Amino acid sequence: MNEVMQAILSRRSIRQFTDQPVPKEILEDLVQAALHAPSGMGKKTWKFTVVTNKEKIRLLAQETGRILGREGYNMYEPTALIIPSNLRESPYGKEDDACALENIFLAAYSYGVGSVWINQLRDICDEPSIRAMLTEFGIPEDHTVYGIAALGYPAASGQYKEAGDVAFVE
Amino acid sequence: MNEVMQAILSRRSIRQFTDQPVPKEILEDLVQAALHAPSGMGKKTWKFTVVTNKEKIRLLAQETGRILGREGYNMYEPTALIIPSNLRESPYGKEDDACALENIFLAAYSYGVGSVWINQLRDICDEPSIRAMLTEFGIPEDHTVYGIAALGYPAASGQYKEAGDVAFVE
Repeated sequence: MNEVMQAILSRRSIRQFTDQPVPKEILEDLVQAALHAPSGMGKKTWKFTVVTNKEKIRLLAQETGRILGREGYNMYEPTALIIPSNLRESPYGKEDDACALENIFLAAYSYGVGSVWINQLRDICDEPSIRAMLTEFGIPEDHTVYGIAALGYPAASGQYKEAGDVAFVE
Repeated sequence: MNEVMQAILSRRSIRQFTDQPVPKEILEDLVQAALHAPSGMGKKTWKFTVVTNKEKIRLLAQETGRILGREGYNMYEPTALIIPSNLRESPYGKEDDACALENIFLAAYSYGVGSVWINQLRDICDEPSIRAMLTEFGIPEDHTVYGIAALGYPAASGQYKEAGDVAFVE
């Protein structure tokens, strides 16, 4: 089996991370992976914001938990976030960002870095306190956030759950 | 650079295919790749339908073109389609299917198979004539189709368009 198939079949979502930071060179490669995802009609109306400041990550997770009524929510305490954002009015923003996130997850795996999709901001990114943090990160006001990659070196393994029908029409 | 990064950075959307069919063993691997994508809350409410019947692909493309007012629309005449469908009521259906499609695209690339995202069914999959074809393919009535992978051996190369801002918050 080739290494690409191997990575796709072996990647798991990781929900526990060590304190070891992910080197900036690797994070830069993950962003390159994201930028190379396909995009509806080639529009690429996305931006990728990499957050490695642990205190800012902690505060974003804490405020997210407060709004969602989940005290102690910590986004699994990652050492880095990559936040794809996309023009609110883009008809393909959600799909584009999802493909970019999957590229980030696979690229991370290829470097031994664990990852998990954080979807908690999807419905609350325009809550004033969250939007203020996103603005502080430089995320444009006319962008929305669908999903976030939480990243770090794995402190636990992930699991695969097989599910989904398959049919061939020949 | 590892092979996973190499594939992610080198994959391009392909819009012209040869007549050479994609072997069933490869299509089965592409479906495995799709099934290993992450899924919101691990729900995996998806189904993957592989269509290799050229006449059925031609008719689906033709009817899509008729509805969209695009005479001669042919979905780039692929030799295979993989149609992810997802429970209409799933809150994560679009993201899940997008991640699965990106896995399919990268896995296809790893086998030298070209691919492109077909988004034309997204808004018309419940048009009666289209739904009748999907039903004939065995796609459940309570499933919707967001995107489709058109697949085949490349008859032309694809292009990369660089676009998207990047920022680091350290």
